Amino acid sequence: MNGAESLVRTLVGSGVEVCFSNPGTSEMHFVAALDKVEGMRAILGLFEGAVTGMADGYGRMAEKPAATLLHLGPGLANGLANLHNARRAQTPIVNIVGDHATYHAQYDAPLASDIVGFARPVSGWVHSSTSPKTVAADGARAVHAAMQPPGQIATLILPADTAWLDAEHPAPKLPLTAPAEVSSSAVDAAAKALKNGKKTAILVRGQALKEQGLAAAGRIAAASGARIMCDTFAPRLQRGAGRVVIERIPYFAEQMVETLASVEQLILVGSKPPVSFFAYPGKPSWCTPESADIIYLAHPHEDGTAALEAVASAIAAPKEPANVAPLQKPDLPKGALDQFTAGQIIAHYLPDGAIISDEAATSGIGSMIATTNAAPHDHLSLTGGAIGQGLPLATGAAVACPDRKVVCLHGDGGAMYTLQSLWTQAREKLDVTNIIFANRSYAILNIELMRVGAENPGPKALSMLDLHNPELNWVQLGQGMGVESTRVETAEEFAEAFSSAMKQKGPRLIEVML
Amino acid sequence: MNGAESLVRTLVGSGVEVCFSNPGTSEMHFVAALDKVEGMRAILGLFEGAVTGMADGYGRMAEKPAATLLHLGPGLANGLANLHNARRAQTPIVNIVGDHATYHAQYDAPLASDIVGFARPVSGWVHSSTSPKTVAADGARAVHAAMQPPGQIATLILPADTAWLDAEHPAPKLPLTAPAEVSSSAVDAAAKALKNGKKTAILVRGQALKEQGLAAAGRIAAASGARIMCDTFAPRLQRGAGRVVIERIPYFAEQMVETLASVEQLILVGSKPPVSFFAYPGKPSWCTPESADIIYLAHPHEDGTAALEAVASAIAAPKEPANVAPLQKPDLPKGALDQFTAGQIIAHYLPDGAIISDEAATSGIGSMIATTNAAPHDHLSLTGGAIGQGLPLATGAAVACPDRKVVCLHGDGGAMYTLQSLWTQAREKLDVTNIIFANRSYAILNIELMRVGAENPGPKALSMLDLHNPELNWVQLGQGMGVESTRVETAEEFAEAFSSAMKQKGPRLIEVML
Repeated sequence: MNGAESLVRTLVGSGVEVCFSNPGTSEMHFVAALDKVEGMRAILGLFEGAVTGMADGYGRMAEKPAATLLHLGPGLANGLANLHNARRAQTPIVNIVGDHATYHAQYDAPLASDIVGFARPVSGWVHSSTSPKTVAADGARAVHAAMQPPGQIATLILPADTAWLDAEHPAPKLPLTAPAEVSSSAVDAAAKALKNGKKTAILVRGQALKEQGLAAAGRIAAASGARIMCDTFAPRLQRGAGRVVIERIPYFAEQMVETLASVEQLILVGSKPPVSFFAYPGKPSWCTPESADIIYLAHPHEDGTAALEAVASAIAAPKEPANVAPLQKPDLPKGALDQFTAGQIIAHYLPDGAIISDEAATSGIGSMIATTNAAPHDHLSLTGGAIGQGLPLATGAAVACPDRKVVCLHGDGGAMYTLQSLWTQAREKLDVTNIIFANRSYAILNIELMRVGAENPGPKALSMLDLHNPELNWVQLGQGMGVESTRVETAEEFAEAFSSAMKQKGPRLIEVML
Repeated sequence: MNGAESLVRTLVGSGVEVCFSNPGTSEMHFVAALDKVEGMRAILGLFEGAVTGMADGYGRMAEKPAATLLHLGPGLANGLANLHNARRAQTPIVNIVGDHATYHAQYDAPLASDIVGFARPVSGWVHSSTSPKTVAADGARAVHAAMQPPGQIATLILPADTAWLDAEHPAPKLPLTAPAEVSSSAVDAAAKALKNGKKTAILVRGQALKEQGLAAAGRIAAASGARIMCDTFAPRLQRGAGRVVIERIPYFAEQMVETLASVEQLILVGSKPPVSFFAYPGKPSWCTPESADIIYLAHPHEDGTAALEAVASAIAAPKEPANVAPLQKPDLPKGALDQFTAGQIIAHYLPDGAIISDEAATSGIGSMIATTNAAPHDHLSLTGGAIGQGLPLATGAAVACPDRKVVCLHGDGGAMYTLQSLWTQAREKLDVTNIIFANRSYAILNIELMRVGAENPGPKALSMLDLHNPELNWVQLGQGMGVESTRVETAEEFAEAFSSAMKQKGPRLIEVML
């Protein structure tokens, strides 16, 4: 067997089942090895930003890494923005980047570049294989590194000759590291703080935002009156009927400050103290009151769910959590279609166990509000602020969870970044309904332009935020990539299109004219 | 004036006239400053890979830098692949990347990343401004660095507070560095070598591939019988009627070796010894015969054109160059449409002074052959191997040269990478005719899969190279972005569509079914 086959066998043996790929010449032996090994699904993306975003969506839902397959430095570079988002989401990914043969590097051929340099800012682990004899072991280490709690990107660089030369055997799977147990002193400190009468907020991130962790947090709230909060952009949040409702920190700095103004102590579970997304002239970056105590209950690599349960026990919290969402599907609105009526329609028809990939930006608040009491679902958000995540994230989530409906909510500006994902949805017949909110604008920037104090913007400045000229036509873009697409202009039209999409399987695109 | 305005004024004063942009919140003050300063055209791209590719196309044709405007690390990351190509093309670009305010960096907000880390592999010069008082001077230095012969990418990172805080005044333009003169000893050595009777090839790159340098090379050929060659992927080559025909080194390693087999001495003008694009098992990377002498006449930062003229004088070359192409437009073919008949049609109708942006890959040989004796034109090629260059390069070239017709020849696989460029073409009403060669395949990889020795590829491997499922529809994709688009299946249909596009101004897309 050659190095490539030893690597693919090792990956499969280590539990990696899917490879999101956009290969080139230097990856041809890896590609050929895919047919020699059972158990690795290969999914082609027509752009690497789509590929890495898919790996992120897969990892967030499967809770284990997919592999990527990228073509040298530029292929990696094209995937970096969504790897940045994945890094912020702490998603496990085995990020495989082909390289020139080791002996070819010295010639500085046109595609040569500093791959390690490109990889380092997004990777928790980077290694460039030096021999076909070690590639398998390097692969096992990459999977192990990717799964190191809470999850990270492990970049394995694969020089072509380490793939094509003879190897010996696959490497055995390495034992996975479990999330660290939280110390009893941290549990005691949080429990004690919850009884001191101060106004407390618990900010939760990571695995503890799933049902079990939320239930424990809700029990603590029931016992102590503490507020349970999450970041604006949580990687994955379980919401909807039957789940504890969590307070999402708002986006803008002044809203954050207002939301947190009364907090006297902040307990962190897998999270960091909230800071503003951007800096603004004369506005604070640090949004927790200066006088508030910051208490670290669980760090990101620790078991936040167990920590919350231990605290709930320590304060003798009741079994029933506070603030469990009842099922209350909104009535169907009629007439004007805007993000709020669209949100009501989505919440009305959203099936049990749906996955929402949310990059709706300024058009997303309506859906977020309306789905609070909708059927239980997972909500995935734009963790790193690098727009163009939503479509590929939805695509990867659909690969991870073929029996669940995926709904992608996307602004038109961001969706243009990685629209190639639609082709993969069509090719793999994935069950994704893509809602494109077409406001023909980088709408957030019209708000931000004022907020940063750039007064009286002129026509050139405003034109940089405006997507009206020419009008994008998402029906044509979607159909051009093989996805059934339709445009809606009224609530009734959207209700019909969305309900029909929820009843059928397979990719759909609905352009919502705002 | 604030830092942003001081920077924009400095850029305009230093000769930068165009800013290709995809801004975000942290760049809003720069955007607002665009209206306060006369003389900077702002062109929006809907994806940063389009933005940087446009800056490359502009720089290759204008021979001076455009500015980019990118949004933090992820915005830069999305533009890196085409910056890689621009680095290989030695194109001057002032690459401006917004960043968080200096004091905000400590909080590691979601969009924070190692921008310098991302920038370094593609940049000849990187600087992050630390004060609004120095931003203007930093901008002047960036333009100077970008124009350092032969041209490079100067990345200026602009923290938001250095843009919004008060500055003093713009900075004066710095004097530009001219290309270095070649030493007389280098000229003497080359002249002496040309008389020693050995079989000589002169490999030319950079500015010397324009008419004047080619004429000098042609005179040397006339006197000495030396072969005049260029790399497979020259950044910019002037070809067609009236220009000296140059021998283009072929793509595949074994063809390169065969082409160079008889060379006894290789004279380099702004070029490096040719090496294979990829490494292949059992095939050489180094393609010049081991016994050949390598003679450096001009390094890339030196004046290659003057060097060739000096050598021509030194060997008393005749005034008339050898191998000047006559004007011989091919007849119009009929019937089957393939890359060869398509190339004949293109060559037949190509107007004087056209610019060809060529990323046709396996479909490009037909046009390359057919246009040898077409009307004089500039040919821009994929310098760094990072696919997705052709459409934005054409877009930027059209901005630089509004009076010249731009023809973009593109494979369908690569065109999917940066298709967002079409929207900018429509928005700016640029005179670009985009030919998409639709073979529904990463066709080069079907060749490479065999060549690297990956034998008997299985269905999974082959599916990674195949774009048939689903079929892309470029007419819908083009129209979805506001570009008049048509599909052709016969030579007659293509001739009609192409000739009509050559007669009109404005963006067009023709999908050539292969």
